[in-house]
Amino acid sequence: MPLNLEDLSFDLASLRAAYAAGTPVRAVIAEAMRRCASDAPHAFIHRLTDAEIEPYLAHLDGVDTASLPLYGVPFAIKDNIDLAHIPTTAGCPEYAYTPTQSAFLVQQLIAAGAVPLGKANLDQFATGLNGTRSPYGACRNAFNPDFVSGGSSSGSAVSVAKGWVSFSLGTDTAGSGRVPASFNNLIGLKPSLGLLSATGVVPACRSVDTVSIFALTAADAQAVLAVAAVPDEADAFSRAAKPFGVDFSAGPFRFGVPRPQDLNFFGNDAAIGLFAQSIERLHALGGTAVEIDLTPFLDAARLLYEGPWVAERYVAIQDFIEAQPEAVFPPVRTIIQGGKTKTAAEAFAASYKLKAFKRVCDAVWQDVDCLLTPTAGTIYRIVDMQADPIRLNSNLGHYTNFMNLLDYAAVAVPAGFQGSGDAQGLPWGVTLAAPAFKDVPLLRLADRFHRAQALSLGATSATLADTPAINTAELPKGSNTAGTVKVAVCGAHLSGLPLNWQLTQRGARLLGAVQSAPEYKFYALAGGPVQRPGMVRVKEGGAAIDMEVWELPAEHFGSFVDGIPAPLGIGKVKLADGSWVSGFVCEAVGVEGGTDITELGSWREWLAKNA
Amino acid sequence: MPLNLEDLSFDLASLRAAYAAGTPVRAVIAEAMRRCASDAPHAFIHRLTDAEIEPYLAHLDGVDTASLPLYGVPFAIKDNIDLAHIPTTAGCPEYAYTPTQSAFLVQQLIAAGAVPLGKANLDQFATGLNGTRSPYGACRNAFNPDFVSGGSSSGSAVSVAKGWVSFSLGTDTAGSGRVPASFNNLIGLKPSLGLLSATGVVPACRSVDTVSIFALTAADAQAVLAVAAVPDEADAFSRAAKPFGVDFSAGPFRFGVPRPQDLNFFGNDAAIGLFAQSIERLHALGGTAVEIDLTPFLDAARLLYEGPWVAERYVAIQDFIEAQPEAVFPPVRTIIQGGKTKTAAEAFAASYKLKAFKRVCDAVWQDVDCLLTPTAGTIYRIVDMQADPIRLNSNLGHYTNFMNLLDYAAVAVPAGFQGSGDAQGLPWGVTLAAPAFKDVPLLRLADRFHRAQALSLGATSATLADTPAINTAELPKGSNTAGTVKVAVCGAHLSGLPLNWQLTQRGARLLGAVQSAPEYKFYALAGGPVQRPGMVRVKEGGAAIDMEVWELPAEHFGSFVDGIPAPLGIGKVKLADGSWVSGFVCEAVGVEGGTDITELGSWREWLAKNA
Repeated sequence: MPLNLEDLSFDLASLRAAYAAGTPVRAVIAEAMRRCASDAPHAFIHRLTDAEIEPYLAHLDGVDTASLPLYGVPFAIKDNIDLAHIPTTAGCPEYAYTPTQSAFLVQQLIAAGAVPLGKANLDQFATGLNGTRSPYGACRNAFNPDFVSGGSSSGSAVSVAKGWVSFSLGTDTAGSGRVPASFNNLIGLKPSLGLLSATGVVPACRSVDTVSIFALTAADAQAVLAVAAVPDEADAFSRAAKPFGVDFSAGPFRFGVPRPQDLNFFGNDAAIGLFAQSIERLHALGGTAVEIDLTPFLDAARLLYEGPWVAERYVAIQDFIEAQPEAVFPPVRTIIQGGKTKTAAEAFAASYKLKAFKRVCDAVWQDVDCLLTPTAGTIYRIVDMQADPIRLNSNLGHYTNFMNLLDYAAVAVPAGFQGSGDAQGLPWGVTLAAPAFKDVPLLRLADRFHRAQALSLGATSATLADTPAINTAELPKGSNTAGTVKVAVCGAHLSGLPLNWQLTQRGARLLGAVQSAPEYKFYALAGGPVQRPGMVRVKEGGAAIDMEVWELPAEHFGSFVDGIPAPLGIGKVKLADGSWVSGFVCEAVGVEGGTDITELGSWREWLAKNA
Repeated sequence: MPLNLEDLSFDLASLRAAYAAGTPVRAVIAEAMRRCASDAPHAFIHRLTDAEIEPYLAHLDGVDTASLPLYGVPFAIKDNIDLAHIPTTAGCPEYAYTPTQSAFLVQQLIAAGAVPLGKANLDQFATGLNGTRSPYGACRNAFNPDFVSGGSSSGSAVSVAKGWVSFSLGTDTAGSGRVPASFNNLIGLKPSLGLLSATGVVPACRSVDTVSIFALTAADAQAVLAVAAVPDEADAFSRAAKPFGVDFSAGPFRFGVPRPQDLNFFGNDAAIGLFAQSIERLHALGGTAVEIDLTPFLDAARLLYEGPWVAERYVAIQDFIEAQPEAVFPPVRTIIQGGKTKTAAEAFAASYKLKAFKRVCDAVWQDVDCLLTPTAGTIYRIVDMQADPIRLNSNLGHYTNFMNLLDYAAVAVPAGFQGSGDAQGLPWGVTLAAPAFKDVPLLRLADRFHRAQALSLGATSATLADTPAINTAELPKGSNTAGTVKVAVCGAHLSGLPLNWQLTQRGARLLGAVQSAPEYKFYALAGGPVQRPGMVRVKEGGAAIDMEVWELPAEHFGSFVDGIPAPLGIGKVKLADGSWVSGFVCEAVGVEGGTDITELGSWREWLAKNA
């Protein structure tokens, strides 16, 4: 045994290293089961028995550990998501049914080598953000059992934070995949709606539900997403990933921050300081803060619980709640039965309002690449939550309720520990959000933000610094980098020059200044305005030319190319480092009448001399 | 007076010619008002008085007739669309209100020179497809007053068909912009949802409503669309036009035809023959018929009236119908009050079903470019419709009800006259449909289909042959030809050659074979596989090179360009006719080691010689 298994961190990098070093998968899974066994926090509704786990281990027998992306990775499944032959309770024993098949996305994970260890506790029917609404016991915070775990994906978060499993599946309608991440020092990815199949998932509000991913690092969340994000023909809400376009995460980027009057920390002064630090941290990573009005977002949020969407919860369990109303946990029953009396007229009227709010909210993406908010303003003790279960729960959703209604992607990311106050020592987190299908840039920025802090992983003693940064090649299919094209420019398209708008208007961003290989003649072409140069590659007598490399969305590159007049065109330009990149080339015939300015090697210098 | 105004056809081409010849706009409008004055068919609820029209004429005083795209064009407005200072009744006098502003899209039309002449009769609250449901009188068919006009945009259609106005605005939720077009020998454009602003329009089912356009020719419908399709910030359902991609209308194209068992002509044998002829006509235009299963489309259609969408009609006039139920026309009242009792749970459940149907229906676009169906299987006499108002109305929507629910664009187009049966001598029509934002290719195909028949315009004596074909430059902003790019290829990308798949896989289509200007040297480049040629433009010693011009969607051109290796690139190639088009160019330095094959002038010949 090459490692002391008891000390093994279950982050993916550590686990992969252990397998590469020869640690047997059965030993790792046995250790994971051992860790799960005590379960003082009530994280699990059902832990799999040896016999129940055996088929998943047998699946890995004789398999090359490096051949499966999630080989031998233990995970937990929120108990509103089907695992074959294990009851799905949705937190309600009377509701339970035993599926013969696993949920579509669970099948993807298992096929990739992941090993399910248990069905995780939840706020019943995923109705709640706090983790106390379960007949299987109020789930306890991984750091301090007096505090709520957050919910509804309570056990999913706690089992990862405790270091018992590598990752877990939750669901997220109004914040259920983010609030528990924040309360347990985790990454909580709430993917774009439809990216993860809902086949085999008990719906909450089906039109605004998504499965979510809890992980110790952004890299791990992305690795799971890359495996799980498979389009599902059987799920009408399934959507394939789309190119995310320009990746803003490397900076410079602009991030929206709510105006001071839109922020509410519900009396938690420690959180105020942590949020201010988070803004500073994004500044340090190359971000520029832009103050935004959160009002339309909060107006949209109010529709979710005050409006007709609660009828979706009723539709989801209509037959059951009508037959056995007393089987439903009291606050959950009150909420869901409220959906029965909503009218279709109210539903349509609210959908019109949402459409109008979305139009206003979407305008923010003209000004910012992403949004930074607290994930939840504060956290509560379990006794306080149980004493005031509706109002305090509602406070937890202040910054999360609007996200799915508006079709945005979001990543909850740790932002430090509360240094004072009632919740001293407990973690606190922020959320980064962006339009749908920007999951990957969000995860990349979350990873940079996370790594800018010296943090432990979840509630374990492992540290983030010991894990590798996010893998930029490990992407959900469809969101890949074919979404952008790099183009080298040498003349009127350089920053600040007359045709640069043709790039910026297409959403291009400057990657940097470069030089071409010293193999080009450089000419100021005849004609104009606009005055333009041409680069002609030659065998002898060439020089290195100053260029800029820009990245622009591939879908807008075609119209850019089509607008270029002869004798210029887009070919491949050889750079000083020997690489080739799409860029401006000039037909040799076109330099006639022009001026050879090769010795200047720079269009800006030529302009300066001829100003 | 250069023309006999009484004989002037109001199609746009004739009208423009009249204005160009010096006919005063006030004379044309006076003639239009004269034509409207009798109104035996009950087409108008209100005809504008001289005083009410005066501001629109004053707007044109001293204006160059050619400076406004709709200079002096008379039009009618369905009376659920606001015209400033004229009551909007929606077909219900007790509901009427007098708006101070015109609807947003009416403002666009007036600014472009169009002159509103009247508010057109309709099935009350746009609830119906037959034209009899109005307290202002059942609207009569333009060809035979015993027959229905179709509805709900009854007066809009009849006023155009009669030749009283050039075009009219209708609305279309379930077929109201298409069925009346079919019954009155008109083009009925049901644009993509959101393309025309709904600000100032009384909603029917707001989530699936659109304003529609009736015109004598497809060219006229497109000219109106180009002016009216302006995105509206105030309408949350407004959408900007998008590039329509490859234009299938020129052929070859594939069109879907319902299986025989999906067709229902409701006993009208004459229509069976006209539909068969329509299929043949599309064949003759370069189309290939593909039989499709209409079941999921009809399933989706059933949701509209049997499902909860009727609650949208209730929301639209809730306060009014609660206060004055007796003011609502009986069959309309029954329908709209049915929306009151639908629950939000039913609304969400139906929205799930629609989502699933849409997924199945959308799959058809993998196999076909457009869909051909009857617009309505048959037509009814007014007396029969009034005797059986729900069932017969429902028959009229068999092929139209699903279109907006599924977010497709559609154009109703005349398909001949019934040569026998009860409705002998009445027109009959078909509908061409395609995914949202394909309005322009649909109109172009509709124009070709229309011109393939020797038809009169509407119920007038003017003939289609005397009007020009559709103008391919006159497009709604955003749907323009920047949506595609033409690229000239000379080597391995030619049809049938090894890299041609790089074009076809991106949805490109061959426009034709061309030759370059005789100004190119042609080389078989060193290296490979794949073997490739290069064209180098020269001052002397060049030849004409055989090329093909392909058209591909602009959004896929960028990745195509980015994949081209040095020394090739995409620049501008001069063709034999002197025009320039994007195409393959070769850096001069790159021909070293290659073979000069200029005298062959053709890559295929080179390949044949070296096979």
